[in-house]
Amino acid sequence: MTPHALTATEALAAIAAGRLTPTDLAASCLDRAAAREPVVRAFTHLDPDRVMAQARAAEARGPGAQRDALRGIPAAFKDIIDTVDMPTSYGSEIHAGHRPARDASVVALTRAAGGVVFGKVVTAEFANRRPGPTTNPHDPARTPGGSSSGSAAAVGAGIVPLALGTQTSGSVIRPAAYCGVHGFKGSWGEISYAGIQLTSATCDTVGLYARSLADIALLRSVLTATPFTGLAPNNVGGPRIGLCRTPFAEQAEPYTHALLDEAASACAKAGATIADATLPAHFARLVDAQRWVSAYEGARSLAYEATVHRDRLSPDILEGRIRDGEACSPELYRSSSRFGEACRIEADALLGGFDALLCPAAPGEAPLGLAFTGNAVFSTMWTFLQVPCVSIPGAKGPSGMPLGLQLVGPRGSDRRLLEVAAWVEQAVFG
Amino acid sequence: MTPHALTATEALAAIAAGRLTPTDLAASCLDRAAAREPVVRAFTHLDPDRVMAQARAAEARGPGAQRDALRGIPAAFKDIIDTVDMPTSYGSEIHAGHRPARDASVVALTRAAGGVVFGKVVTAEFANRRPGPTTNPHDPARTPGGSSSGSAAAVGAGIVPLALGTQTSGSVIRPAAYCGVHGFKGSWGEISYAGIQLTSATCDTVGLYARSLADIALLRSVLTATPFTGLAPNNVGGPRIGLCRTPFAEQAEPYTHALLDEAASACAKAGATIADATLPAHFARLVDAQRWVSAYEGARSLAYEATVHRDRLSPDILEGRIRDGEACSPELYRSSSRFGEACRIEADALLGGFDALLCPAAPGEAPLGLAFTGNAVFSTMWTFLQVPCVSIPGAKGPSGMPLGLQLVGPRGSDRRLLEVAAWVEQAVFG
Repeated sequence: MTPHALTATEALAAIAAGRLTPTDLAASCLDRAAAREPVVRAFTHLDPDRVMAQARAAEARGPGAQRDALRGIPAAFKDIIDTVDMPTSYGSEIHAGHRPARDASVVALTRAAGGVVFGKVVTAEFANRRPGPTTNPHDPARTPGGSSSGSAAAVGAGIVPLALGTQTSGSVIRPAAYCGVHGFKGSWGEISYAGIQLTSATCDTVGLYARSLADIALLRSVLTATPFTGLAPNNVGGPRIGLCRTPFAEQAEPYTHALLDEAASACAKAGATIADATLPAHFARLVDAQRWVSAYEGARSLAYEATVHRDRLSPDILEGRIRDGEACSPELYRSSSRFGEACRIEADALLGGFDALLCPAAPGEAPLGLAFTGNAVFSTMWTFLQVPCVSIPGAKGPSGMPLGLQLVGPRGSDRRLLEVAAWVEQAVFG
Repeated sequence: MTPHALTATEALAAIAAGRLTPTDLAASCLDRAAAREPVVRAFTHLDPDRVMAQARAAEARGPGAQRDALRGIPAAFKDIIDTVDMPTSYGSEIHAGHRPARDASVVALTRAAGGVVFGKVVTAEFANRRPGPTTNPHDPARTPGGSSSGSAAAVGAGIVPLALGTQTSGSVIRPAAYCGVHGFKGSWGEISYAGIQLTSATCDTVGLYARSLADIALLRSVLTATPFTGLAPNNVGGPRIGLCRTPFAEQAEPYTHALLDEAASACAKAGATIADATLPAHFARLVDAQRWVSAYEGARSLAYEATVHRDRLSPDILEGRIRDGEACSPELYRSSSRFGEACRIEADALLGGFDALLCPAAPGEAPLGLAFTGNAVFSTMWTFLQVPCVSIPGAKGPSGMPLGLQLVGPRGSDRRLLEVAAWVEQAVFG
């Protein structure tokens, strides 16, 4: 296998065994970028010299160096994440060419672990709706999803093994499903948002992309600054899985429901206990509550742009989140916030009865066209509930495009959820 | 009265009536700064030319201009709040001279309302503990409190009518009490933190300083981007006030308890219903839980500084918040977070039985010396509960230093709390 196609875990093992060097890996990823970028257009900034310099530095540290959990591994960063040595423009012409004075915490932790900051990748305008130029790596006529469009596409195109994104509504899980990669959004608060464009303090969560769950777990340990002990899906044995089509089931394609049925059946065959997990009817209102909370907070977080550069914001955001947020009364913000909090506590009890819920990751395949990044309804509720979510690729839709399977766990179960997901992946696709 | 000594509300009325101009007001505040700054040392950046240019621009807009809720009113900003035209160094030599590329949301909203960004004021290092050079405006041998040291001192010294700070533990209310000004920390989430140094997403809250509650209410409406309708304490009539010495009562000086008794008695005389409000015993654990949550989140938010510039961080933060945060396991972070959330819901019920709780704002007078910014214990719990808090000046301690009275309301009651506080202020000090 060519180095760019390795997972981070595989590449680290090859580097440790002397079969691969960080510079060979970086060069292979750069070759892949040269081949795929003209069509995929995932990157806003990619400087081969800077990539190679970082790879040489990682190589010079040698094996056994301190803090080398990601030594020589390339990772791409959504362009709402500040980087001290690369431009960060938040998907907006207002900030074109902006060079931050420091790295976001997630960038600093990646570098401290020996990772190579490979480049910056396309975000929708301020991580909202107006898409950039990125295409789906499996079909350039289709959206990669958004707002973490470039992150999912860069991993899906085999350019980098790891990428970071963010989710305020459905910006991590949906692109992961559309681009056929693993995507993970953890419990709210565990990974710092310092140095990332703030939208909604209640909803914003860092997201991880990779081509294996082992990689997700490794990157998560780096970004939470906690010890990594590896995933042990073999210890899961007979998980309790709740089949949860959500209150928005009718928005999922029939083939998405069929995929859930097949996955549940494969899990049952492998020893899982499968039960229907029906959410309380009022959980359907979480989508509306999330809209108001993220709009109230989001419009105020963009106060500088909305007051000084209003004419340079797109109609998508002006007539969407900003209009909503400016219209949202403090009372509606408070009642929506309080409703979310109450549902979080209900969800703790409900989800605590399962090892994971099995849900759609998106309504179906990535839609045709680049103007619309797709329907986020199968993520919005979970984001607002602040629970960990992971999307597993492996299935295909009727057009041959990737489909994701989403697993959702109780708040704080992030590590356990990844082990259960590894068990499910083995049962369904193994 | 000289213009610098006017409240914002008084100055706006004088400007509207043609008795004062924004440039006269700015010049008077600059004169006051020239007289007081050599001793108070509240400012990290103060450029008279820039102040006057802003005042002239406000004046040129003329009365009746759109969006002039703060037309010509000077406001100072804690130096962890980004300003596009003034350096922002977060109280750390690491970022000395840093010039942000955009304004924080609170700065943008202040400017859009016609306010004059008067300068940047001293913060403890990254809004933590290591103090800057600011002295208490009532006694230069004493601390102004922290971490919003310069904000409280600049208002207390009569240099500006308004200032902004932030509170993660007790960084707004305690300096307000020590410096003899009004301080307010609203319900979590209502004012955006975009463009402000992130410490703890769970605890960080913007704080307001002024010399009247009317000013606090006005500034709050600007910063929440909601309509201002004025305070109507006369509509409060016979509020239900809970006397709450908190589980940390023994840390308050006898004269602080005596002040609470006198205030309660004056309120009762004026028609309030006074009852003891005893918090559940387990609320005492909130201080410890807040410590772990703010340390877990805070250490990760400083990942760039802690990995790249560790030798330029002070021992105060390295051996305090960063050491705590690096030692805090994800399990301890989660259990502490969940405990806080459960207590918030308990507090909603408990505080909902009152119009406000009457509490100490600090143990007593500002301590002697500048090395220790004082004990935050009478704020930490409220910050973690995400409830609105206001400190009212007017009383004096045995050394003649100011004492604050703190009023605390249920989450989301911010506007009502300010009206109740105005009623209490009239009853106690009127």
